[in-house]
Amino acid sequence: MRQRAVEAAQKTLGRLGQIRKRHKPGAAPGTLLVEPGQPPARLWMMAWDEHQLTEAELERVDDLRPHLGPRRVMWLNVDGVSDEETLRKLGDLFHIHRLTLEDVVNVHQRPKAELYPDHYFIVMNMLRYNDTLETEQVSFLVGDGWLVTFQERVGDCFDAVRERLRQGRGQIRQLGADYLAYALIDVLIDHYFPVLERYGDRFEDFEERILETTSMDLLPEIRTLKRELNLLRRIVWPQRDALNALSREPTPLISAETRVYLRDCIDHATQLMDLVETFRELSSGLMDMHMSVVSHRMNEVVQVLTIITAIFVPLSFLTGLYGMNFNQELPGNMPELNTPYAYEVLLGVMALVAGGLLFFFWRRGWLSMGGGVLMGERRRRD
Amino acid sequence: MRQRAVEAAQKTLGRLGQIRKRHKPGAAPGTLLVEPGQPPARLWMMAWDEHQLTEAELERVDDLRPHLGPRRVMWLNVDGVSDEETLRKLGDLFHIHRLTLEDVVNVHQRPKAELYPDHYFIVMNMLRYNDTLETEQVSFLVGDGWLVTFQERVGDCFDAVRERLRQGRGQIRQLGADYLAYALIDVLIDHYFPVLERYGDRFEDFEERILETTSMDLLPEIRTLKRELNLLRRIVWPQRDALNALSREPTPLISAETRVYLRDCIDHATQLMDLVETFRELSSGLMDMHMSVVSHRMNEVVQVLTIITAIFVPLSFLTGLYGMNFNQELPGNMPELNTPYAYEVLLGVMALVAGGLLFFFWRRGWLSMGGGVLMGERRRRD
Amino acid sequence: MRQRAVEAAQKTLGRLGQIRKRHKPGAAPGTLLVEPGQPPARLWMMAWDEHQLTEAELERVDDLRPHLGPRRVMWLNVDGVSDEETLRKLGDLFHIHRLTLEDVVNVHQRPKAELYPDHYFIVMNMLRYNDTLETEQVSFLVGDGWLVTFQERVGDCFDAVRERLRQGRGQIRQLGADYLAYALIDVLIDHYFPVLERYGDRFEDFEERILETTSMDLLPEIRTLKRELNLLRRIVWPQRDALNALSREPTPLISAETRVYLRDCIDHATQLMDLVETFRELSSGLMDMHMSVVSHRMNEVVQVLTIITAIFVPLSFLTGLYGMNFNQELPGNMPELNTPYAYEVLLGVMALVAGGLLFFFWRRGWLSMGGGVLMGERRRRD
Amino acid sequence: MRQRAVEAAQKTLGRLGQIRKRHKPGAAPGTLLVEPGQPPARLWMMAWDEHQLTEAELERVDDLRPHLGPRRVMWLNVDGVSDEETLRKLGDLFHIHRLTLEDVVNVHQRPKAELYPDHYFIVMNMLRYNDTLETEQVSFLVGDGWLVTFQERVGDCFDAVRERLRQGRGQIRQLGADYLAYALIDVLIDHYFPVLERYGDRFEDFEERILETTSMDLLPEIRTLKRELNLLRRIVWPQRDALNALSREPTPLISAETRVYLRDCIDHATQLMDLVETFRELSSGLMDMHMSVVSHRMNEVVQVLTIITAIFVPLSFLTGLYGMNFNQELPGNMPELNTPYAYEVLLGVMALVAGGLLFFFWRRGWLSMGGGVLMGERRRRD
Amino acid sequence: MRQRAVEAAQKTLGRLGQIRKRHKPGAAPGTLLVEPGQPPARLWMMAWDEHQLTEAELERVDDLRPHLGPRRVMWLNVDGVSDEETLRKLGDLFHIHRLTLEDVVNVHQRPKAELYPDHYFIVMNMLRYNDTLETEQVSFLVGDGWLVTFQERVGDCFDAVRERLRQGRGQIRQLGADYLAYALIDVLIDHYFPVLERYGDRFEDFEERILETTSMDLLPEIRTLKRELNLLRRIVWPQRDALNALSREPTPLISAETRVYLRDCIDHATQLMDLVETFRELSSGLMDMHMSVVSHRMNEVVQVLTIITAIFVPLSFLTGLYGMNFNQELPGNMPELNTPYAYEVLLGVMALVAGGLLFFFWRRGWLSMGGGVLMGERRRRD
Repeated sequence: MRQRAVEAAQKTLGRLGQIRKRHKPGAAPGTLLVEPGQPPARLWMMAWDEHQLTEAELERVDDLRPHLGPRRVMWLNVDGVSDEETLRKLGDLFHIHRLTLEDVVNVHQRPKAELYPDHYFIVMNMLRYNDTLETEQVSFLVGDGWLVTFQERVGDCFDAVRERLRQGRGQIRQLGADYLAYALIDVLIDHYFPVLERYGDRFEDFEERILETTSMDLLPEIRTLKRELNLLRRIVWPQRDALNALSREPTPLISAETRVYLRDCIDHATQLMDLVETFRELSSGLMDMHMSVVSHRMNEVVQVLTIITAIFVPLSFLTGLYGMNFNQELPGNMPELNTPYAYEVLLGVMALVAGGLLFFFWRRGWLSMGGGVLMGERRRRD
Repeated sequence: MRQRAVEAAQKTLGRLGQIRKRHKPGAAPGTLLVEPGQPPARLWMMAWDEHQLTEAELERVDDLRPHLGPRRVMWLNVDGVSDEETLRKLGDLFHIHRLTLEDVVNVHQRPKAELYPDHYFIVMNMLRYNDTLETEQVSFLVGDGWLVTFQERVGDCFDAVRERLRQGRGQIRQLGADYLAYALIDVLIDHYFPVLERYGDRFEDFEERILETTSMDLLPEIRTLKRELNLLRRIVWPQRDALNALSREPTPLISAETRVYLRDCIDHATQLMDLVETFRELSSGLMDMHMSVVSHRMNEVVQVLTIITAIFVPLSFLTGLYGMNFNQELPGNMPELNTPYAYEVLLGVMALVAGGLLFFFWRRGWLSMGGGVLMGERRRRD
Repeated sequence: MRQRAVEAAQKTLGRLGQIRKRHKPGAAPGTLLVEPGQPPARLWMMAWDEHQLTEAELERVDDLRPHLGPRRVMWLNVDGVSDEETLRKLGDLFHIHRLTLEDVVNVHQRPKAELYPDHYFIVMNMLRYNDTLETEQVSFLVGDGWLVTFQERVGDCFDAVRERLRQGRGQIRQLGADYLAYALIDVLIDHYFPVLERYGDRFEDFEERILETTSMDLLPEIRTLKRELNLLRRIVWPQRDALNALSREPTPLISAETRVYLRDCIDHATQLMDLVETFRELSSGLMDMHMSVVSHRMNEVVQVLTIITAIFVPLSFLTGLYGMNFNQELPGNMPELNTPYAYEVLLGVMALVAGGLLFFFWRRGWLSMGGGVLMGERRRRD
Repeated sequence: MRQRAVEAAQKTLGRLGQIRKRHKPGAAPGTLLVEPGQPPARLWMMAWDEHQLTEAELERVDDLRPHLGPRRVMWLNVDGVSDEETLRKLGDLFHIHRLTLEDVVNVHQRPKAELYPDHYFIVMNMLRYNDTLETEQVSFLVGDGWLVTFQERVGDCFDAVRERLRQGRGQIRQLGADYLAYALIDVLIDHYFPVLERYGDRFEDFEERILETTSMDLLPEIRTLKRELNLLRRIVWPQRDALNALSREPTPLISAETRVYLRDCIDHATQLMDLVETFRELSSGLMDMHMSVVSHRMNEVVQVLTIITAIFVPLSFLTGLYGMNFNQELPGNMPELNTPYAYEVLLGVMALVAGGLLFFFWRRGWLSMGGGVLMGERRRRD
Repeated sequence: MRQRAVEAAQKTLGRLGQIRKRHKPGAAPGTLLVEPGQPPARLWMMAWDEHQLTEAELERVDDLRPHLGPRRVMWLNVDGVSDEETLRKLGDLFHIHRLTLEDVVNVHQRPKAELYPDHYFIVMNMLRYNDTLETEQVSFLVGDGWLVTFQERVGDCFDAVRERLRQGRGQIRQLGADYLAYALIDVLIDHYFPVLERYGDRFEDFEERILETTSMDLLPEIRTLKRELNLLRRIVWPQRDALNALSREPTPLISAETRVYLRDCIDHATQLMDLVETFRELSSGLMDMHMSVVSHRMNEVVQVLTIITAIFVPLSFLTGLYGMNFNQELPGNMPELNTPYAYEVLLGVMALVAGGLLFFFWRRGWLSMGGGVLMGERRRRD
């Protein structure tokens, strides 16, 4: 259990530590410090006009040119951000600022939206949950009639949108590149909710286990949970802020129709924030509660042991008393020892003392408190 | 006790987890993903002009048309949000944006208010308290001369308003649909107060029980309480914000007269916020206090047991002393054992030692601290 | 002690729970739900012009009319807010909105200020401290040349102002109704300071007692203190905000001269806020400190008892040793028992062991820690 | 130690409690409620023009008139704020609002800045640290060519400025009364830093002592520290706000040159805020840490005592075993007792048991945990 | 371990305490209170135009004049801020306000940006981590065509920029002094990230050690960590604010091109803030967790010891029982003692009792809780 938690913690912290690791301090701003020997980026293009949709995997950026033009919309998805040449050519083709390209390459950016004269740039985070929380930066470059998205790895959550494009359902082929960008961001945000549902399940699970457990097993897991919620929050808040800022920009690159949809998207991002904050609050008391319960269980045990001692100590005193060696032939010295059946009487007295103490403890509720443990009442009681 | 609390927790968390569950990630925005095979929605209409009021349950949306018109006000209440056809027809009739309809269907929205050119859209939450906190989304669509409300289930808190409409008391039939919407929201918010009163009672109850209890019984209940207050807060704050935003919109759809009433309604929503925040603060110390009291009670017990041991240990030493087998015939070896009545003297010494220790403990206040438990003083003392 | 605290808690909570209790959910807004059979309100009027001051208790609202007029100022104080007829007549006379009257009747409003075209409405809270914190809503209606104040009960803190009016001292008769309203609010706020001083005394008292106490006596009192400060804060903050909002309104109903005084009044309200926040911060650590001290005292006791045991356990081992029944006639078996004066030597060894342990504990500082309790050093030490 | 801390606490709290004590609730605003029989205020004047500087102690306010005039700057310092006549005359001379005079008299104002048509009014707090934190209200009235400062007591931190005035060094005699006011405030704020340095020393001291201490000695001191930081914060924040507000006022009474200096002064006030907030954060964990360390030390002791018991209990069992009185003449009954040298063998067994337990405890690290205390390792270890 | 931590704490606190130490309270503002006898500042100049770059160490400030001029950019780096003459001459040459020079000399300023008519002034902090956190103030004075930077000590992180200047790579020689200032600040901020990575490592390290440790070793280190994060926060926040404020100033001294880069720089500063806040949150629970784990380990030990006692106490009772001296010749008195093989039977009974208790404790899970310690399970378990 702990092994998994520690690994999760390391991943999460590693993620924090890695931030901007690729960027060598001191390099000129706008330098694309891609590691050499990386596989080329995978370019997948979809382009359409009123009449038809073309879909193709491109070898080179230049193959893109025929698909650009007025009354056409082109979506290029780039998987992999380490292919310097492709990035540079795309930068030339769409007049993208080198700082923007740097932000595309240096993943682990804060979600943000930036407006340039003829395009805008959005950084979002795609969320996945496989044992631990994984994020992948997705960058959107939206111009008039074209959209370029960059992902760190192959594989995303956009297939539903692709299918809608292919089938021409809904408005997605009527409205421009700005609506497409919205549609992708909407899907991306929608995929946060199943992840947050998992956290809901984990909370229920924790509550159960905290009341059962007697050791500090859950400590690292709770720490990891808090750290993941912290990471989530660091993603979700700026994401909402970025969308909000974008929706307030008076740019012609976003149509009035898309703005209505964007508002809906911001609503969902706000719901995410609400959920994350709720989980954070719930998690805040978890650690204290865990430590309290563990400490209580341990005290219960000590109490039971102390009860055992407290019952036998007076009995041992009595045995010690009649083990004394006073000269019984002198007057007044320990006549009990020379009384017939005195032994049985003493045994009876001892039983009375022990029983009396047990009764007293039971009446005080101590047996039902810690001592209840003795009676196997624990499971039933709470 | 615990069973109930865990169930309540599951419901509350479930509620959090369910958020947007119906909405399949990746579906086109504006898709009404209603589950098939649902019973049709129940449409109940009230319409009136200066002279008279008509009230009817409608079969189809189209039956509504005769009741619309200038100088008339129509209120349609729809119970059930899973009837796709009805929703679509209403959308067509009143020019409602598909995203708005999606928000109506996907209950668990954050309370909000949105303004469209010829109508506005308000999402509120109706509160009920049956053992656990239950919320139901109520959506208001307010146009010029018409109001449509959507509820998840049959049954609401609006009967008083219906009665006022039927009897024509007050201004409710003179003023338009905007005043009616206000009147409904006012009633809805008024129904929060009895629920919050319940929380007041629960706090009093908790304070009592925390001082009495000796086990960790209350732990899950306190957690549930905190979670419910958390949920309440997530509802109450955006509700106030939504009303506030609405009151500041310069739309002709809200008359000056209604605005005055709206201001009053915001006052009440602010009071709700105050109450919820107060309860949240009160609840924050509850858990610590509970754990402290339980731990204190347990320590009291351990202290009493330790006192028993501390009294008998010196006595046992004395018995051990005179149980030694030194050869009494040699000079100096244990002359006490050969003294008449030494046994009785020793018993007296033991009584003195025990009494002295008890007196010492009593003077130090330890008997009145933990030991007071021994004297049955606990109930009276605190 | 506890009884009083619980009662105080109930009152405070009751206050929270009562909020808007009188207002039946679902009643038409503006309905004056006064309980029937209430005694009529007591109307006390003061009116003056340049030349003279008239003062009278009125039977009916209509008796007021002669005293209104240009160049005159009239102050009507109404004790009791359950007299529906009086309220209705005053509403007609001064053109008061029915929602305003509702706010007058439904005491427990949040402090607020509302501006109407020809008058403004202020809700404040009068504070009293008799064992527990008591608040009373005072509503001010200020028009051009008239001021109406509503109080829940007979008895207030305004006598000093009445006296100043009668004697014509200061500017109070030269300036208009707005200045009079300010003067009353100023007095009302001034009366908060003695109450807060009491809290200062209680804090000093708590600090003393917390260091002395050994049981959880103070727990309910600290809870009550926190709750009262919570309540105070809920009153003091909106009070300041209301005055602030009022001072920024560009209404001719408040003269420039009065505005200067209002600014002073806001300063005092801000000081109140400072004080309440300070007390809240001080109170936040009180509970933890109390529990820590109690737990420490209890541990001290357990430590002393453990020291007793730790000293006697080795001694008892020795007595046990020489109580064994090895056959002393066999070689090597317990020759000590057959040594003259061995008993005395053993007693000496025991004394040495006991003394050595005591010395060791003393050197380690344990006797001065928990054991210092044994020496009666506690009072002096801390 | 504690005595001093309690006194300090009382002073600090007293300070809080005294706020506005002099002001009798209900008095007319602007009333100067000075206590009768106070010594007259001490008036010290410095006035200069381009050519020369006059310095004098004045008997009466009227002696001031010759020193006022265009192209002259006059600084009057008033020590003592209980001399009603002086205040009234100054008020008449400089047209000071009576509420301003009231603020001068009722020390314990929140720091603030108020602008009047022909002068402005600043309230600051002078800080001193003699065992406990002491504040003194300094009020500044700045007009065109004149500055009046009011202090509660004789003695201040302005001598350096006076010297600069006398020597005519720097710009202080070229620039007007506004620059002089700035220079005084700058010195006043500079004198906060040595006080805050003291707190830095106290924190270092606390950290040291907390790790050493074994009793709750530091509790009252930590409480006092927190309270003083609280008080400091209540002074430092509004001070910065007041200066900030002043610097933003577009008044001709503050020259452009002085504004640059004022900005510098605000920087210093912001640094103060930073420091106070830092200290507050550091102090927040101090109490918990103290209680934890004390509780840990006490548990260490209990652990050592328990180890003693745990070693002797099995040994005592063995002695008890061979102290039984089974009839050794019957077969099988305690043959050990009749074995030669069995006693020595048993002693060896006991030594082995004790040694084994000690070794076991040592291997588990318990002797180096609490038991390390036994070895006198404590000082070296941590 | 502790020694290092205490030293680190002292340095950090010392840093806080030193703030403005050099500035003697009461000195005239703008006084450069440099300590006499300091080595002269080291002046290193780089200047370039379209054609070539000159680089030189200067003896005197006046040697700078030939390098200033239109179409040229000059960067002067000053190492050491205690050379009064150099500062004064620079002030004269570039018309720098004396308050600005004072800020350069009095290091430990809050990061800030100030705009003057013909230049602007930025204060940043350079970060280094050698065992403890070290900061060095770097001041930037940026004019039209010139940039002067001041550092406290020789040695910085700007070598990469110098190299870029020499090689003429990138835009750095095309763009003006404002871009150069940006480039330096960007590098300075980039160097924060490796330091923060170290904190990430320390957190991982702490988490590991906290679960292993059994004494309070980590306490001072955690305190130091928190204090350093506190210090970091005090630097990072105003740094971002300063850059933000600068980017919003509509000054011609910052070109549009540079503004784009500045925005990127602000993004990085915001990321820093995020990281620091994340670390602060993570650190907040660390102390509690540490104390809880230590306390739990200690309780585990006490529990084991108590189990030992609880097993032997009943056994000792039995030995005491048969050590009693009842006269066995009388009827009924201790017939067991005269039964053959009773001793062996008793030994068997004792083994059963001990085994039964152990079995009972094992079934209750107590051996796997604290007693698991006995089985050496600790390492494996958690």
